[in-house]
Amino acid sequence: MAKQSLSIIKIGGNIINNSELLSSFLKDFSELEGLKILVHGGGKKATSLANSIGLEPKILHGRRITDKANLEIVTMVYAGLLNKNITAVLQQNNCNALGLSGADANCILAHKRIVKDVDYGFAGDIDTVHSNNINVFLQNGMTPIFCAITHDKNGQLLNTNADTIAAEISIAMANQYNISLIYTFEMNGVLRSIEDKNSVIENIDSKKYETLKLEGIITDGMLPKMENCFNALEKGVEKVVIGNPSVIRDKNQSFTTLIL
Amino acid sequence: MAKQSLSIIKIGGNIINNSELLSSFLKDFSELEGLKILVHGGGKKATSLANSIGLEPKILHGRRITDKANLEIVTMVYAGLLNKNITAVLQQNNCNALGLSGADANCILAHKRIVKDVDYGFAGDIDTVHSNNINVFLQNGMTPIFCAITHDKNGQLLNTNADTIAAEISIAMANQYNISLIYTFEMNGVLRSIEDKNSVIENIDSKKYETLKLEGIITDGMLPKMENCFNALEKGVEKVVIGNPSVIRDKNQSFTTLIL
Repeated sequence: MAKQSLSIIKIGGNIINNSELLSSFLKDFSELEGLKILVHGGGKKATSLANSIGLEPKILHGRRITDKANLEIVTMVYAGLLNKNITAVLQQNNCNALGLSGADANCILAHKRIVKDVDYGFAGDIDTVHSNNINVFLQNGMTPIFCAITHDKNGQLLNTNADTIAAEISIAMANQYNISLIYTFEMNGVLRSIEDKNSVIENIDSKKYETLKLEGIITDGMLPKMENCFNALEKGVEKVVIGNPSVIRDKNQSFTTLIL
Repeated sequence: MAKQSLSIIKIGGNIINNSELLSSFLKDFSELEGLKILVHGGGKKATSLANSIGLEPKILHGRRITDKANLEIVTMVYAGLLNKNITAVLQQNNCNALGLSGADANCILAHKRIVKDVDYGFAGDIDTVHSNNINVFLQNGMTPIFCAITHDKNGQLLNTNADTIAAEISIAMANQYNISLIYTFEMNGVLRSIEDKNSVIENIDSKKYETLKLEGIITDGMLPKMENCFNALEKGVEKVVIGNPSVIRDKNQSFTTLIL
């Protein structure tokens, strides 16, 4: 029997911080046909809430250091405020959204990141995505909406990178579905020149990726995102794309396709 | 075919504010046999968070007045911090908990309370509980954990009384299940004398309820709780009980049973 198609879309802070962009994206997402999963990152609200109660958020190498107080903040903002508002707006658009953290139905099991040079605190590295319950949701007409919180099955919630969550869910579902994994961000794709938004590189395979790294075209925060992309492709995900959120609606929008 | 049994248990702020009580209750809840649903209220954390960012929570007739800023707070605390931590601890105890707001899978549809004498702000009055998806969760081995947030299907989240949520879920599931609805609170049941914790009134029917109201034994915050109880019984809920949280574990614990 042919596998069903499943779109897994990740949105980040750039959309979440802009209410017009978010509202327009959620409308597009609702109208997207077929089975789908949304994974959302954080945005500015966690930082502004932390500031307003006098906490100083710490960021190192682009990753948040999550002490106990900051874990409370991200749990409130990601799993509460953002996840439930996104869910409510999708429901308004007749998408039967189901907001989830990785603790819910034990969907995403992680462990607290092992301390080497840096103690990232309550940051989670994913061990297992339990696809069985995610499958129950999908096959009963529900659309899972994951925030970037997981758990360790020992009662501990963990702050977890949303790009990695999207990749790991894709990998776990790949034996049952034809997956399209779509990473959206502020650019139209991976750009040859950061100054030229039309300089989208249409295809990147692992060889080209090495060249683009050496040339300094892919750097910093894009590196872990690319690693997630290639990891997903290597583990059976059919299609991995990086582009602007409008890529899910506009067929003429350019984007970057990753190829093994 | 005989109906399956389903226990619907409501816990309030008194347990949520006490980490030892909460941990002990969640262990008991995990060990409770058969299908079950947990509904949890709020507790002090919403008030302390509101205070720490300089908001003044307003309470009138025992109900919170929910302006936009306070709705953000309760969404963060109830649907985020509390719901996900409760879910993670239940998962630790091998209960396959699934944390939910009423927006998730459109489980609980409400409308913003009509303004009469008082504008309660973003307070929700329940219109419909959609039992179909709740049923999907139960029949696939998941245990729904509801926080006191609902939605209006127009993208608006609403702060909703947890006692009423427990009653309305019970009523909606009553045609498919034999429901035991258990309201837990700090007392051992409805007391004849507030000073004597052993003065539990074992049975209260609607006639006795009228007498107890006239005698001033049932007053204030207990009145809406009792109305929820009788409403549930009138609409097909099999058994309604008020008692201490330990009632779900300890067979010798006294409690109050409501009777039509």
